[in-house]
Amino acid sequence: MSRPTADFSSQLSPALIVRQASPPNLETPFYALDGRLTPQPSHYVRSHFPVPPLDAQTWRLEVGGGAASPLSLSLQELRAMPSHTLSATMECAGNGRVYLSPRMPGVQWDLGAVGTAEWTGVRLRDVLERAGIQEGALEVVLEGADSGTLTDPGRTPGDIRYARSVPLDKARDDVLLAYAMNGQPLTPDHGFPLRAVVPGWYGMAAVKWLSRLYVTETPYQGFFQTVDYSFWQQQHGLSPQMVPITTMQVKAQIARPAPHGSVTAGHVSEVMGAAWTGEGDVTRVEVSTDGGETWTDAEFLDPAEPYIWRRWHLAWHTPQQPGRVTLMARATDSAGRTQESGHDAVRGGYMINFPLPITVYLKGGES
Amino acid sequence: MSRPTADFSSQLSPALIVRQASPPNLETPFYALDGRLTPQPSHYVRSHFPVPPLDAQTWRLEVGGGAASPLSLSLQELRAMPSHTLSATMECAGNGRVYLSPRMPGVQWDLGAVGTAEWTGVRLRDVLERAGIQEGALEVVLEGADSGTLTDPGRTPGDIRYARSVPLDKARDDVLLAYAMNGQPLTPDHGFPLRAVVPGWYGMAAVKWLSRLYVTETPYQGFFQTVDYSFWQQQHGLSPQMVPITTMQVKAQIARPAPHGSVTAGHVSEVMGAAWTGEGDVTRVEVSTDGGETWTDAEFLDPAEPYIWRRWHLAWHTPQQPGRVTLMARATDSAGRTQESGHDAVRGGYMINFPLPITVYLKGGES
Repeated sequence: MSRPTADFSSQLSPALIVRQASPPNLETPFYALDGRLTPQPSHYVRSHFPVPPLDAQTWRLEVGGGAASPLSLSLQELRAMPSHTLSATMECAGNGRVYLSPRMPGVQWDLGAVGTAEWTGVRLRDVLERAGIQEGALEVVLEGADSGTLTDPGRTPGDIRYARSVPLDKARDDVLLAYAMNGQPLTPDHGFPLRAVVPGWYGMAAVKWLSRLYVTETPYQGFFQTVDYSFWQQQHGLSPQMVPITTMQVKAQIARPAPHGSVTAGHVSEVMGAAWTGEGDVTRVEVSTDGGETWTDAEFLDPAEPYIWRRWHLAWHTPQQPGRVTLMARATDSAGRTQESGHDAVRGGYMINFPLPITVYLKGGES
Repeated sequence: MSRPTADFSSQLSPALIVRQASPPNLETPFYALDGRLTPQPSHYVRSHFPVPPLDAQTWRLEVGGGAASPLSLSLQELRAMPSHTLSATMECAGNGRVYLSPRMPGVQWDLGAVGTAEWTGVRLRDVLERAGIQEGALEVVLEGADSGTLTDPGRTPGDIRYARSVPLDKARDDVLLAYAMNGQPLTPDHGFPLRAVVPGWYGMAAVKWLSRLYVTETPYQGFFQTVDYSFWQQQHGLSPQMVPITTMQVKAQIARPAPHGSVTAGHVSEVMGAAWTGEGDVTRVEVSTDGGETWTDAEFLDPAEPYIWRRWHLAWHTPQQPGRVTLMARATDSAGRTQESGHDAVRGGYMINFPLPITVYLKGGES
């Protein structure tokens, strides 16, 4: 796998589509999907508040809460702990939002708020063990150094920091506190000096600029898992309850042909993309070249491996007749989940995993 | 205490100010405060959805959940259980919203979304005991038969019923399932055949048209304690968390002189009102007749008794000079809480307990 060199001098890489310049919300041009890992300069960036200027010498990770002994770790101390490396696909919970109608509030992501990187850092469980987790611990709040003021005509939480929680079981399982991405130190946009990586979960859990871990005895109810990044889930036949968004839905995306691109009529063209899921493995990808009427199995280019997408492709015998075609892809995972044909309104602008219709133009060949 | 006769034929009693005709949102003219109990036809009504047409013969209260044995009780069966009576002051969490600037969304209540009634029914703890609460029970969800569809540009929970939860400790302490109000059966507007009464809590917990009790092992996250009827609370130095509104804040209200009413200059006029709190007793009421510059202790007309307001009054020697005066009242309770001078923005349109400025006109006497 290629190990790209991080470019600290160019935070707004020209390889990214700017959805918002400040704070940086930058999208991968998904049609350029190449290796299984996304180079750091091409990996999408999602920010809620301005990038905090952190200094590796003075920055510390504070650990505390009702069910943990206080701890304060420097970057040097973290780097001295056993290091672990894992590759993970990370998708923004709002990826694909431009395909929703009516338009939903939030950053209007196309296909590129998703990427796969190799992360290196310390296991959250090792830090928690060092802090000494006590009886009654339920969740770990991951708090970033990024902050801002939110306003709302009704009520406002005021000045807040970005924060999300993970249940203790997940925290002890596979959550990584990463200081390197694809073998290079994190760039400021990606959370320097430390970010969380929560395998299988949408990107909102991968808190950047980590500054504090807080062990709670009750479910954390911060802004970014109540007002934002939550949805309505029916349970026990009761009316829906507000539930934080967590694991990624199963999803396949077409990289090539690119949306609104063209292919030659009456030829063989490659349909190529990637597919991922939050739990288990993607076991099947199907492609439709007639707007969802019929489906053909695609072939995987990668083996099934934990946490990361599988690239796939299909040889497509394009119709003789020039015109407009709608391509779609859908994945199924080892848990038997597949992609529903429509978007469930309770998800709002999040967890968009219906098979996205990709418009492609068939152009006459030069035969 | 007076026992008014409920008037089933007049649900929109002329004694009430209509804030919304359908569903009924009706306000007491607070200036008419008389006895310690509010007559049923004058008691405020707060509805979120249309009044459900329930039949005393077919209606049942279902009890269930992960930590309770299923139970189904008819009104007759409930009436056959030991009955208890308690008087309680109930205030809508949005009472006084017209005094907020900028204007907050929601029903624009003046002073009259508060009342005191004598409730008769069965104790929630007796019903829970009959159902058999099991290990791990945390909360009891109180669900009404009233329902509707909520829409939101972002996301929507869809068709929901009105529901709120109370912690198991509170449920076992003093929550009443009431079938009578001031000695009369509940009217449809007040929740016939059964409503919850949660002493010390704002009215949103007093679920009307009760149809189901559901014992949960995790905190209930329904619409009416997350999106609605919640606020932002700072805890452990973390960013604010979304917390359901529960207990009433300490508060005194002036009933007379009525807002924008007039009194005679250079005479003795009575300032009269009521004061309540969610925990403990109101121990002091002070009145300012100069817009909050100076304060004078008022005299209580009622003894301190659990759950209910204390009426109070003060002889006011009105100034000789005709003009406009701002009256204010503020209460202190046995927990040492008093009324802050301004409204905290994190409360949004709820828990409005700053001393409300009441404008009164001094008119020249006919001496």
